[in-house]
Amino acid sequence: MASLDWLPAAIRERSRVRELDAGEALFRQTDRAVAIFEVERGRLRLIRNTVAGHPVVLHTARPGELLAEAALFASAYRCDAIAATAACVRAYPKRELLAVFRGDPALAERFMAVLAHQIHSLRARLEERNIRSARERVLHHIALHAGADGRTMPVEGTLTDVAAEIGLTPEALYRTLAELQKEGIVRRTPSGITLKKRATT
Amino acid sequence: MASLDWLPAAIRERSRVRELDAGEALFRQTDRAVAIFEVERGRLRLIRNTVAGHPVVLHTARPGELLAEAALFASAYRCDAIAATAACVRAYPKRELLAVFRGDPALAERFMAVLAHQIHSLRARLEERNIRSARERVLHHIALHAGADGRTMPVEGTLTDVAAEIGLTPEALYRTLAELQKEGIVRRTPSGITLKKRATT
Repeated sequence: MASLDWLPAAIRERSRVRELDAGEALFRQTDRAVAIFEVERGRLRLIRNTVAGHPVVLHTARPGELLAEAALFASAYRCDAIAATAACVRAYPKRELLAVFRGDPALAERFMAVLAHQIHSLRARLEERNIRSARERVLHHIALHAGADGRTMPVEGTLTDVAAEIGLTPEALYRTLAELQKEGIVRRTPSGITLKKRATT
Repeated sequence: MASLDWLPAAIRERSRVRELDAGEALFRQTDRAVAIFEVERGRLRLIRNTVAGHPVVLHTARPGELLAEAALFASAYRCDAIAATAACVRAYPKRELLAVFRGDPALAERFMAVLAHQIHSLRARLEERNIRSARERVLHHIALHAGADGRTMPVEGTLTDVAAEIGLTPEALYRTLAELQKEGIVRRTPSGITLKKRATT
């Protein structure tokens, strides 16, 4: 969703791929902001170094995610971006992106829409974390991410990825799903997890 | 931060204030999207009604927050917005906002910057929720929100608001702060909470 593959070919062609080793820095706090990035492979940690000497992890960026969008509107990066694993990112030169948006309001609107949808999705994830019961959180997540039938959440990747997104340990997720299956509330299929009936949560 | 008070006076003047009683709907899922909103007072819940009959709370919007930004780029609202308390919102007509952004790239950029900063802040809050220990989560939050001195987090509103933002119960927050004070790691002042030394978390 956050992908920039709708950008004009001229901009896509000017983007550059960068490979990083685990531990390597993509940029450092106070470096001049020259690009925004799309993660193609691996994970990057965004870390702010505070005066008090507490490094603060702001975000862990994963494949398909944009990184440093706010740098489009700032002169310098506000944090370090460090590869947590071997990683590959695509860099879009900031100056050219801004020029495209200034010259083509439809493209600017498209970018705004990407940002607005991302806000929507992040808020929903944060709201989900306010649900303290693992059982209710899992049911909430399935309902929220149900596809066309309104009941089935496709599972791409592993359940470990799902657990990370919900903010549960993989063990807690497995246990909760097993209970819900046993009670006939959800069903596992090769493609996903289906809500079978209205759960009394 | 999410406020739209930088918009041209002509647009601000065309915005309209709407008062809602607790339980009243601001808009309903599938209603035609005609405006985006800024919450001035009270709280609104954004709720998606799923086919499986599970209503899903997507977000609780609080004073100072924008609401339904994604509706700028969609023809219909994707959820219900229901006042959780008596509330007051300011409505910005969508058509006029989009016309302003199309006609003035600098304003469009300003709006993008608002969205991008909000993504940044939501990601940081989500990352914080991944910290399981209350103690580490509190220290992380203070370091992340430290003001000019890099050590002191200003406390606006009550500690209950802080607890909600961190995702702890007020009791857990009070207890954790009391422990950290006793150990000399943080100090409470009338204006905020100061990190006194590097905590060994």
